[in-house]
Formats: sequence, C-alpha cells, structure tokens
Amino acid sequence: MAKTFETLKGTYDYLPSEQSLRESIKDRLKDVFKRYGFLPAETPILSMLDLLTSKYSSDADILNEIYKLSDQGKRELGLRYDLTICLTKLISSNRGISLPFKRYEIGKVFRDGPVKLGRNREFTQCDVDVVGVSSILQEAEFMNLTHEAYSELGLEVEIRYNNRKILYGIIKSIFGEMSDELLRRVVMLVDKLDKMSKEELEREFIKLGLSSKSYDELYNSFSMSYEDLKAKYENSTSEILKEGFLEMDELRALTTSTPAWKSMLYAPYLARGIDIYTGTVWEIFLKERNIGEHDFNLSLGGGGRYDNIITSFIDDGNSYPAVGMSFGLDVIYEVLKAKEGDEKKSDIDLFIIPLETKKDSFIFTQGLRTRGIKADIEKVDRRVKKSLNYANKEHIPFVVIIGEDEVKNRMINIKDMTTGEETPFSLDDYEGICEFINKRL
Amino acid sequence: MAKTFETLKGTYDYLPSEQSLRESIKDRLKDVFKRYGFLPAETPILSMLDLLTSKYSSDADILNEIYKLSDQGKRELGLRYDLTICLTKLISSNRGISLPFKRYEIGKVFRDGPVKLGRNREFTQCDVDVVGVSSILQEAEFMNLTHEAYSELGLEVEIRYNNRKILYGIIKSIFGEMSDELLRRVVMLVDKLDKMSKEELEREFIKLGLSSKSYDELYNSFSMSYEDLKAKYENSTSEILKEGFLEMDELRALTTSTPAWKSMLYAPYLARGIDIYTGTVWEIFLKERNIGEHDFNLSLGGGGRYDNIITSFIDDGNSYPAVGMSFGLDVIYEVLKAKEGDEKKSDIDLFIIPLETKKDSFIFTQGLRTRGIKADIEKVDRRVKKSLNYANKEHIPFVVIIGEDEVKNRMINIKDMTTGEETPFSLDDYEGICEFINKRL
Repeated sequence: MAKTFETLKGTYDYLPSEQSLRESIKDRLKDVFKRYGFLPAETPILSMLDLLTSKYSSDADILNEIYKLSDQGKRELGLRYDLTICLTKLISSNRGISLPFKRYEIGKVFRDGPVKLGRNREFTQCDVDVVGVSSILQEAEFMNLTHEAYSELGLEVEIRYNNRKILYGIIKSIFGEMSDELLRRVVMLVDKLDKMSKEELEREFIKLGLSSKSYDELYNSFSMSYEDLKAKYENSTSEILKEGFLEMDELRALTTSTPAWKSMLYAPYLARGIDIYTGTVWEIFLKERNIGEHDFNLSLGGGGRYDNIITSFIDDGNSYPAVGMSFGLDVIYEVLKAKEGDEKKSDIDLFIIPLETKKDSFIFTQGLRTRGIKADIEKVDRRVKKSLNYANKEHIPFVVIIGEDEVKNRMINIKDMTTGEETPFSLDDYEGICEFINKRL
Repeated sequence: MAKTFETLKGTYDYLPSEQSLRESIKDRLKDVFKRYGFLPAETPILSMLDLLTSKYSSDADILNEIYKLSDQGKRELGLRYDLTICLTKLISSNRGISLPFKRYEIGKVFRDGPVKLGRNREFTQCDVDVVGVSSILQEAEFMNLTHEAYSELGLEVEIRYNNRKILYGIIKSIFGEMSDELLRRVVMLVDKLDKMSKEELEREFIKLGLSSKSYDELYNSFSMSYEDLKAKYENSTSEILKEGFLEMDELRALTTSTPAWKSMLYAPYLARGIDIYTGTVWEIFLKERNIGEHDFNLSLGGGGRYDNIITSFIDDGNSYPAVGMSFGLDVIYEVLKAKEGDEKKSDIDLFIIPLETKKDSFIFTQGLRTRGIKADIEKVDRRVKKSLNYANKEHIPFVVIIGEDEVKNRMINIKDMTTGEETPFSLDDYEGICEFINKRL
C-alpha cells in the first residue's frame, strides 16, 4: 500500500500550469531590471545564525520566526528570512565593491510564522536595490522602473508615494515633540489609515494619550493635496519637515515629464510599516482592484530609501545610503492568474504522431526543434484517437500524423486543431513548416 | 568597530560579475528545455523529514548529510538534498496528473557533507525528467536535448552512453551469477575505470574474491566496439543482455541521423554511480578538456532511465517509468568562465553624465530605457573625469555628457569609449540614437 507523505503547511508544489506563469513574471521583471542597469546577485539561504539575529537585521517578530538548525560541525545556523540582510552582508564582506552597487535578487526566504493568503512559510522574494546613492534621482528612477515593470506585466497600477520626513514632521508639528517609541507607534497607526475607519483610528490615538483635536488635524492633513499641505507648513521651522518637502519637490520635478507620473499618487499617510525607511517610501496597488469576482485590495510591492541600516551594520565610518524595493511575486501571480481566467495556452506548438514511423518522425521532430519550434512527439503506445484527444486536452495548436505513406511520398498534412483545416507540406520542407507555424501562432 | 560576519563554509555570495554568467547559462538551458516540450515546476526546499529519509529516497551516504530542523509546531523537517525526491513526491501527491509528465526544475539543494571543488553545502541543481514513457524514443530525445543544450552554451561535448542491462549481463556472463550486493560493488568499481589504472582496479577485483583472468576478460570487453561486443555475446542466453542490446540497437538507430550522433560515444563501462538507474545511462564530458591552464576532466552532467524508483515509491499498482538528467550548473559555470577569460563585457549600453541638467538628462535616460536600451545615469556627485573613469572601468561602450548647452541647443555627442569617436545627435532623436547604439553593439 502506498504511503502518503504530507506537504508541510505553507509550502507548495507549483505544477507547470502554475509555474509557467510564475517564471514568465520573473523573466519580464528581469528584463526591466536590466534595462535600468540592475544586475543579478545570488546569496546563500543557509546562514550563520548570528548574522540573522544581529541587532541591525530586523524586528523582534521576524526573529521569532527564524528557522534554526545546526550542522555536523555543531555550528548554529538559520534560514534567511529576507534578502535585505543578505545584501547587507554581501556589501560588508566585499568592501572593495564598486559603488553605486545595483543588484536584483530573486530567491527563496523562510519564516516559521502563521500561514495566510500571500504569506507562506517558504516564499520567493524579488528585490531590487541600490547602495551608494544619496541623490533623489534614484527614487525617480525607481518610480519609472516600478511603472514600467507593472506595465510590462499588463497591469495598471497606482504608485502611492510619500516621504517619512514629511510624515514625521507633520506628526511632530501637530502633537509636539515625542519619544521615538511614541512616534513609531503613531506612524504604525497612520499606516493603517486606509484599513480602519476614522473613528476606530481615533480610539487608538486616544489610547496612546493623544488628543482628539490633534488627531482631527492630522486626519484632515492627510486629505490635502501636496501643494496645500506644503503651503500649510510653509512657515514651519521643523528641519525634518523642510528637508522632506525639498526631497519631495525634487522627486516630483524629476518625474513630472516621465511615464511614471501618471501612475504616481501622493499618499501623505503612507509609512510602509517597517522601521528601516528614512525618506521616500512607495507602495503599489492596482488601479482597478476588481478582477472578475476577485477583490485585490492588496499591496503588489513597494520600497523606500533606507540610509541607516547598511551604514550602521558595516560601521566603518563610511556612509552607505540605499534605496530598494520588493515585488510581491505571489500576489502578482494571483492577480495575473485571475486576469487570465481559464484561457489555457499550450507550451507545445506542434505534436507529431508517428504510425510505425518512429525513426523518421523523430528525425522530423528534431529538425523542427533545431529551428526553434516547440515540437513534441508521441512516445506512448496508444491509439491515434487517444493521441489526438491528448493534443486537444493540452490545447496544442497543430498536429501532424506521420504514417508509412507520408514517409514514402515525403508529404504530410499539418492540422490546425482549432479550425480543423489541413495544410500539405513536403516532409523535408522544415523552413516552410516553421514559417507557417510561426505565422499562425 | 564593525563586526564581521562569517560566511558558512560551502555557501557563496555570487556577485553580479559571476551571477550574470550563471543566469545566462540557466536562461539558455531553459530555452532548449522548452523547445523539447519540458515545462517548469517548483517544489519546496523545506520538507517533512520522513519523506527525505524514506527508504525509496536515496542511499545511506546522503541520509547522513541531510540538514534537519524542527518548527514551532515541533514537526521534524529537513532541507531537500536533491530534486528527484521532490519530483517523486509531486507525482505521488498529484495522482490525476496527465502522463507523460515532462518538467524541468532549477533549484537549491543542501548537503551537510565535505566541501570540495564542485561540491558545496548549498548548490543549484538543474534537472530535466519525464515520467510515464517506456519508449526508447525518450532516451533518443534526451541525447539530442543534451547535444543541443551544450551547443547552445558553446561547448563541444562527448555524450558517453551505455545501458545498465548490458553492463550487468556482461559482468554476469564473465563472473557467473552473483548476489545483488556483489554485483553492485563490481559495478561501482567498473564505474571508476577511467579514474584508476588497470592494475589498481585489478587489485580491487581480487579483494572482492574475483579472478584475475575474468577481470582481464571484462577489461578487454570494455575496449571493444559496440558491434564487436554484440557479436561476442550473440549466442548468449542471458535475458538481461538480450534486452540491453535490443534497447541499445533502438537508441542507436533512432539517433544516427540526428545532430546528437556526432557527440555520442559508446562507453561500455559507464554505470553512473547511483543505484537508481535501470537501463540507458549517459554522462557528459568536454571533447577538449583543456581550456587555458585548466584541465576539466569532470562530468558536466548526466542522466539515465530509472523505471523503479517512482513506481515503488507510489506503489499503487501502476508503473511509472522515468528518464531524467541533471546539468551540472556549477561545473558548466567554471568551464565557461575559463573560456571567457578576463574579457569583461558591460551590461550597460550607454552612460549618461548630467552637468547641472539632472532633470533633462533623466528624461533622456528614461526615453532610451523605454525603447529597450540599457541606459544608466550618473547619480553620484563627482567630477566628470571620475564619472568617465567609472564608465571606463565598467567597460561601458557609449557615454554622453549633457550640459546646459546641450540642453539649450538640443544637440548631444555620443562618445564611443573604444574608439574615442563622437557622433552628434539631436537630444530628441531617441529612435536614431537607439538604432545607432544597437547597430554598434
């Protein structure tokens, strides 16, 4: 009796019907990354545990979710939980590396945490980062990379953007100076603005000991246009606010005449959860979030400037400003799958069915493959009808049956499986057949 | 002071200078796989430990090298050590899957064993397998896939091939019937034929209690041509030998008129170590193993038919014949790196240096990127000479400096960094500039 082996919760087998789309998403993203001067890097999944738990690495929640293990040499190891820590380590171990350093990495990461939609135990991250650039040009570049990447995937997106400095400045201007810890809590609340009602959020602010009146002022600020908000704080003496508006002005000036502009939406409440960001942040949503019966009110990716994390990790007196973003592969996959619907495409162009002509049919198959056609030959000993059923089921667009007469006369008929139409060719006319198939696909 | 974090022995950071080549190898292989009708699948790295240690999975050596861990739910887990066990599990969990099932998977695997050249603790496997085909057509297809894949990589290879049935038959004809365990040991010795001298090997045979005379006969068989060997055993009553020769005859007949034939070399001693193979086996070596000062007497990949492993794993009364192969990504990478030498190519086509023209230069950069040019813009505040040095060091073929005059007059000069030649263009002539660059690259 067969023993059944369990699949670990939060891990998946991706069959070709799913994985083909996942691979195509990765390929299209990589093409865009390369056009923007980003190159691939690959870092290890297995890591010394002390790196993963180092104080610069991440917040406490993630630390509890690290998969820990040891090896035969009794070393304490862990599986990486994100790619940023690996990038930091890479820069730190390669001090001679030429900056700016632009790399992308697409790889598996692991978290031993609760499993929910879009959050698995083993999942793929797709990160694009630059280390060594302070200029806002970098953010402007990322706005366009983001816009172009999603366009390439056929998705119209909204790039919500903000600057942490402006957000901090506004909060402090309204509520007065506060501890870093309180500021952090307020920012985390603000980040939930589009997920909670005004009243729910207000209760949370009051819990933190903040006044309803100030909360109202903050809430109203977030519905102002960028120009109005800037005008409101024109006379503010807050250094951080001035710096934030300067950066934002530059980002907007750089991007107004570029393709990204039409996707960009100023979102003064946006913080992007994690602590590491120091300036510009952005997050991507679908413009039209309903696809068929699905409602995708989900972040499809995002990023920001994080000037401190690598700098303090390396701590060699130099500064390592960085900007980076993540593309949410799993979410993008779900969205594209929903868009595609059940429209199944075959990855085979032509299916060759030999009838007692194995060798000639095989040579013919090879000849087409060498010329770039995705050809496959029936290798299972079954009736022609079953072979044709298989081709139909797999949605293979063209089929040819090669029997002894076809070999003797060197003539075959290529059958279009959609129309039923048959087109005659010489068995040796590889070029003609390729041209015919390529034109019809 | 900066803390330095150790990299785990047997794991590596691949910088873009290395990873670009590794990615390009994978991309070229995938193109060939797809032409042969193989589709991608992805299986988890994290696995329940009982799957990895199940009796059908692998030999004892590998079992000792499994990285074990547990999760917060106290489950016993392990990291996969190869992709075959994952394929077996995939077929077993998806009984309705349509056969033949053709998939490739390129993914990380882990082994807590000794580290040596071409053997890391964390490494990438690249596997191509078919489940559900008994026909020798499948092996013939693999011969051509192998030949085409290495040609695509610019490598001339020798595909050494054999059939386990012939090997077993010859051994038993010469030494008489023997236990499975002794047969296994003899096969493992024979597999070392090209790594040991005739005398060294003879001593090992004698240790197993086998006669020198029979050893001589076996040794001599291995230098015979296929035709002579077949003639020698023409009257043999060994069933396994007859079956082996039949399969081999068919494989040779199917491939003689295909491109693979000129790479194929019959190697009667070839066993391919691992136990799982049941029929045809093949292994790939460079035709010219010396590249520069390197001697690559290494297997670049290989495969074979394994009809029993998935069948006994699933054990549902059906038969799951399988043929598959692995491409040795790390070895292929080393070979191609040695071939390329120090010839460094840039992944950027054009470098744009703005002089007080950040915004216009950025718009220009974006315009080229949108049209497919790999353009990058200087974002570091440094002197023009340093920017040019950077472009030179990175081997970027074209550079343009855009100052205020260039913007005012809408005229720029594209400088060819190899010849020093400058070509004038209108700043708005994106199409002309793209055509010029694409033509020269």
